[in-house]
This record gives sequence, structure tokens and C-alpha cells, in this order.
Amino acid sequence: MTLHESIDVIKRGCDELLLETELNQKLVLGRPLRIKAGFDPTAPDLHLGHTVLLNKMRQLQELGHHALFLIGDFTGMIGDPTGKNTTRPPLTREQVLENAESYREQVFKVLDPDKTEIVFNSTWMDKFSAADLIKLAATHTVARMLERDDFGKRYQNNQAIAIHEFIYPLIQGYDSVALKADLELGGSDQKFNLLMGRELQKHYGQPPQCVLTMPLLLGLDGVNKMSKSLGNYIGINESPQEMFGKLMSVSDKLMWRYLELLSFESMSTITKWRAEIEQGRNPRDIKVLLAQEIVTRFHSRAESEKALAEFEARFKQGVLPEDMPEATVSASTGIIGIAQLLKQAGLVESTSEALRMISQGGVKLDGERVIDKALQLQTGGVVVAQVGKRKFARVTIN
Amino acid sequence: MTLHESIDVIKRGCDELLLETELNQKLVLGRPLRIKAGFDPTAPDLHLGHTVLLNKMRQLQELGHHALFLIGDFTGMIGDPTGKNTTRPPLTREQVLENAESYREQVFKVLDPDKTEIVFNSTWMDKFSAADLIKLAATHTVARMLERDDFGKRYQNNQAIAIHEFIYPLIQGYDSVALKADLELGGSDQKFNLLMGRELQKHYGQPPQCVLTMPLLLGLDGVNKMSKSLGNYIGINESPQEMFGKLMSVSDKLMWRYLELLSFESMSTITKWRAEIEQGRNPRDIKVLLAQEIVTRFHSRAESEKALAEFEARFKQGVLPEDMPEATVSASTGIIGIAQLLKQAGLVESTSEALRMISQGGVKLDGERVIDKALQLQTGGVVVAQVGKRKFARVTIN
Repeated sequence: MTLHESIDVIKRGCDELLLETELNQKLVLGRPLRIKAGFDPTAPDLHLGHTVLLNKMRQLQELGHHALFLIGDFTGMIGDPTGKNTTRPPLTREQVLENAESYREQVFKVLDPDKTEIVFNSTWMDKFSAADLIKLAATHTVARMLERDDFGKRYQNNQAIAIHEFIYPLIQGYDSVALKADLELGGSDQKFNLLMGRELQKHYGQPPQCVLTMPLLLGLDGVNKMSKSLGNYIGINESPQEMFGKLMSVSDKLMWRYLELLSFESMSTITKWRAEIEQGRNPRDIKVLLAQEIVTRFHSRAESEKALAEFEARFKQGVLPEDMPEATVSASTGIIGIAQLLKQAGLVESTSEALRMISQGGVKLDGERVIDKALQLQTGGVVVAQVGKRKFARVTIN
Repeated sequence: MTLHESIDVIKRGCDELLLETELNQKLVLGRPLRIKAGFDPTAPDLHLGHTVLLNKMRQLQELGHHALFLIGDFTGMIGDPTGKNTTRPPLTREQVLENAESYREQVFKVLDPDKTEIVFNSTWMDKFSAADLIKLAATHTVARMLERDDFGKRYQNNQAIAIHEFIYPLIQGYDSVALKADLELGGSDQKFNLLMGRELQKHYGQPPQCVLTMPLLLGLDGVNKMSKSLGNYIGINESPQEMFGKLMSVSDKLMWRYLELLSFESMSTITKWRAEIEQGRNPRDIKVLLAQEIVTRFHSRAESEKALAEFEARFKQGVLPEDMPEATVSASTGIIGIAQLLKQAGLVESTSEALRMISQGGVKLDGERVIDKALQLQTGGVVVAQVGKRKFARVTIN
């Protein structure tokens, strides 16, 4: 692979690469680069949104580079010292190790274990004295910290910023020094902290790391970022059937973004598919390929074949039309009752009609008959709703 | 002594006592209070301005309390981590101990050694981990720190504030926790930091210390604060003659402030003197009493008698008039030549006349004949200048 091609793989789907010329210089050295990415030390329960970064690490591993999977346990073991956030009690070392084990089980479905080092920042930060921390704090100014978007806004709005919050980005930056990172990956919202690593490496006499920011993955609704609390997510520990069905539910537009960020198919293959779709191929075919790839990654090829077969059987049995109308319903309280959903989606005239149809066994969600009239659905989901033989809609719950 | 009288002694000359009701509650307990005052770990070269605080500690010792003379060596041994202030290189432990020895020699001329404990904040801060410091930093907000006058102004004027500068007041405050201080003394400019001690003691579950701020002593010019760099000071290691002469040079107005802040005569005695002066007594008599008390404190009774005798001999020999005209000359570059001084003070018509008078041996400063025509004097000083037999002026050099 040429240098140019490597850079193309590295930049695929990214928001920003700082600085490309510097990364070029590092790549021509020919040695494996040290790729850092930081993770929260709390119990992980990853969804596909989290794997965008892991996929990028995997791509870098395939190019021969060395992944440093950093667990930021030092601050996790301090907890929230202001005592305001009672949901973040300090973690014990045992909990940290347990969570690391859980990370290991999950992330090695994406990362190559032979090229991954799991590291903990407590290794060096526990040895840091108060004097060391003061010297670290002296490297940056208050004004520089208030440049960070969220700090600046909070300060403007008279919302409290505790002083230690200014120290955390410095520790995150110092981790790059301790790890001698060549490149750090992170979400676009982490850009400020990633640049801190660059600045501190210069301060400590190291060549500065490059920074690669990845976008947030949109959830199944195609509107909000994928998130557990919004309900629009696909967990990597979900069953093959759920995972497959959810991936098949994404819109034809969002599918392309998912391919770019979640698939390991080459961009040239994806471009070829796009051309085929423009010439009349059914987007559903490509969605099946994506769903199969992802289910295979987190389960197995056999499970993915089984999930496809089940999905198709349900599809045929339910006679889902290929061009299904789209509907959006609004659940202002975060949940919506089935009758209300059917009414808002225009599939029934009234909630009483909805309830009658359920009694008669004439309502299905994602091909499954609905029996419970009190069934409630959460915001952020997408379901295929069917009433009687002929009325269908793909319903997004906002 | 009644509680009320004690409080009067404690409040004598102070700017502010926070909170008097709390101090009352502490005093009624009847145990010796722990009185904290913090000092810079750099080599001390004390002048009378510094003794205002020491005098207050001494007064508290006479009331039975325990003085904690705190040397802030922890941050002194870090130096200036921004590297901007090259005049503050980190101190070694040996230098700190040497400086402490020098403090001991100087401050025990004022303090009672039996009721004084010299303590170093490195004793507890060296054991502080980075995690401890983070917890300490979490106790206060950025907005609270920017309330400190100098920080606020620097932030408004876009002058850099390094983040560790926010940590130093917290450490100073934590010292009160470590020392379980009941009362902290400091300059009025230190009020913010002294209150930090109160807040942190509350945070760590201790009864909050009271805070007593003392004003800055004015220098010999009666205008600026006493300071080495302004030259308007009396060093506590100066010779008895210098010390005596300088104290005799203060104005009749400033004398009262010096009595309040520097003398151990009771306020009732001082009030009596004031009445006597109003009824025609010569202020010079009181100035002599003050000069004798101070010279005795830093040298001995014998030296003070000798200095008085020499001063009076010079006074008689020079026939200094009792009501001498005052003059102020301006030395914009920080120094002024003798000829220029005499001309500006109105004692000669021209600098050439001044030089001629010096050649003829007709010019005296503080009773000493001036021989060097190139003599230069520093800003901030006060001298009695004499030209010929009859022309005199007390000259303040601004």
C-alpha cells in the first residue's frame, strides 16, 4: 500500500486530521506508530456508536500500527470530589480491573489483541506528587482553559466550574507524554483535550502527536447521536436477530454513513454499490450485506446467516411492501402507548379503533403480533407497524 | 485582663477582625489559641514594616497564646514552574533551613521563643499526592478565584494567569487545616487567602479560624508603604544610629501611626501623650521615646542611650531648628544628585551655588558634612539638609 493509500484509509470517515503533513512524516519512518485512544473506566456497555473509534484503531492495526487502549482509571478512582454527582462514586481498583476485563471481552471483537496494549493511567499518575501536578498545571493558563467550548459557556452562564476540572484535561494530555503517543483518536467533541496532548508533549520535549477526530454515529432515527438514553442504539451484546433487524431498519440515506463508519469493506466497493443503487439496485440488498458483516463481527457468520433467514421469513410472511411509507410520532414524555402510536402514524382513525384491531390480532410491530394493549414504546426507536393486511408504516418515535 | 480588654489589644491597629463574635467564643474557652502567620521562604531581610505582624503575634503571646510561624517552603521549593520568573529559582532544602535560621535570629527580637513554633508546610504538603491536590482543587470554583482582586484584574486585562496560581491560595488555606489554626494574621492584601483558610477548615470539618488583617506600615516618606525597593525603610539589622536617626526623621503626624503599630506602650499611654502634645509638649520628646523603644528592641538599652546621646550632640552642634521647613524633591530616575536636591529644596539658587557651597564645606546632610559633589541620594529617603549656618530643610525625596 502506498503512503497515499494509507492516509486515505486513516482519514476515511474522520472529521479532522491534525496535521496531515506531520502524520506523513511519522509514516515515512516505517516503524509502527503508537496509537492512543482513551476510555472511561466505568463499566462499559458498548454500542455501535462506540465502535466507530475502535474500527479506526483496527484499520490502523491492519496498517501495522500499535494500539494503546487507555483506561483513565486515575480520575475514576477519585470519583467526583465536589460530591455533587452522587452517581459517580469513586471506583475501587477491583472495580477498575473488572471493568477492564469487560472492555477486553467487548473490544477484542473489533481490535486485534496482538497489536493492542491495555494501559491504565493510574500506572504513572499514582506516582505523581502534588508538586508534579502543580508543575503540570503551570503549563497552561486559565484563559486557555476557558477557550474550551463547554467551560466558556458555563463561565458565561455563571455555572460553577470547580478548579480541578481544569486539571483533568491536563492529565489526559499528560497521558500522551507518558505513552509517547504518535497519534491520538477521539470524538470531535474531544478535540480540545486531544490538542492538550500535543501541547504537553512539546512542553516535555517530545514530538507532538497527531490528532484524528471521528464523528459521532447517528442513531437509528437518523437524527440524534446514537445513545443508550435515547433508545436509538444497537448494543454490541444484543442478539443476532435484534442487531440484524435494527440494522435493516435504518433509512436508505443513513445506510451510507453506517457503511463508511462501521463496515470494513473498502471505500471503492462502497462507491461501486452506490453506483449500482443509482442504476436501480434495491438498497435493501446493501443493507443486508452491512447487517451480515456487523452480526458476523459481534457473533459469527453462522448466526448472521440464521438472522438473515429469520428476517426474510418474517418479511415474506408479513408481506412487507418494499416501499413502505415513513411516519414520525412524537412521544413527549419519552414513551408512547401502542394505540397512540398507531393513530399518530395514520394507520387507524382513533385509539379505540387501534385497541379493537389489537383485540382482533390485526396489529404487528416488526412482524410480531401485538397482544398487550398497554404496550409502550420508547423514544428513539424505529418500528415497522402493520394494521390489517394492507396498512404499513416505518414509524420513527421522536 | 477582661475579655473586653483582650479584644481591644488584639484589635489595636488592625484593619479588620473576622469575626469578632467567633473570636470571643474562642477566647472564653480559656485555652491558648493557635495563631498562624505565613512567611515567604526566601532569604529574609526584615524591616519595621514586617514587624507590624510580628508585634501583633507578640501581643497575642503576652495574652497567653501560641504562635505558629509558618514558612511556606513547599511552593518555594517548586520555584516558578512557568519559567517566566527567573529571579525565583527553586530553593533547596538546605537554603530553606538556612533562611529559617535567619528568620529565627531576626524574629526572636520580637517574638517570645517559648511560645513560638516554627513550622514548614512541606511537612504535610510533601506527603500530598496528586489525587489529594485534585480533591483540594475541587473545593473551590474558578469564579470564586477570579473574585480575588488581582486575578480578576489580570483576567480582564488579558494578562496570563497560569492554572497553578489558582492552587497556591488553596494550599495556603490548607495550611490552616493542617495547623488547626484558631486565628490567622496577615496583611490586608492577604484577606482573600486568609478567608480561604476559613472555608477549607469548614470543608474539612474544623471550626473556622478567625482572620485578623493588619495594615501596611507607611515608609519614612509618609506616603508609600515601607519597602526596600522604595528606600523609605528601616531595616531591623541597621545600626542603632541609623535606626534612631531615621525614626527621628518621621513627621509629627506619621509618628502616631508608628506608635500604634510599632510600640508596645499601651494605647492609654499613647492617648495621654497625644493630649500632652495638644497642650504644647514638643512632639520630638515622644519621637525620642519611640526611637529609644525600637532601638532597645533590636539592639539594647545601652545602644539606645548611646544613639540618643550622639543624636543630641549632633543636633546641638548643628543647631538644628525645632521647626524646620519641609521640602519635597523629585527624583524621577530613582536617584538625585546632591546639587539638584539642594536647588529643588530651595536651599540654593543654582546647582553651581550648591557645588561651591560643598567645596567650601558649607553643606551638611543629617548633620554630616558633605564632601563628595557627585553624591547621589535614593528615592524614598528623608534627610535633614543644611546650607551654611542658617538654611535648613527636612527633605523628602520622591
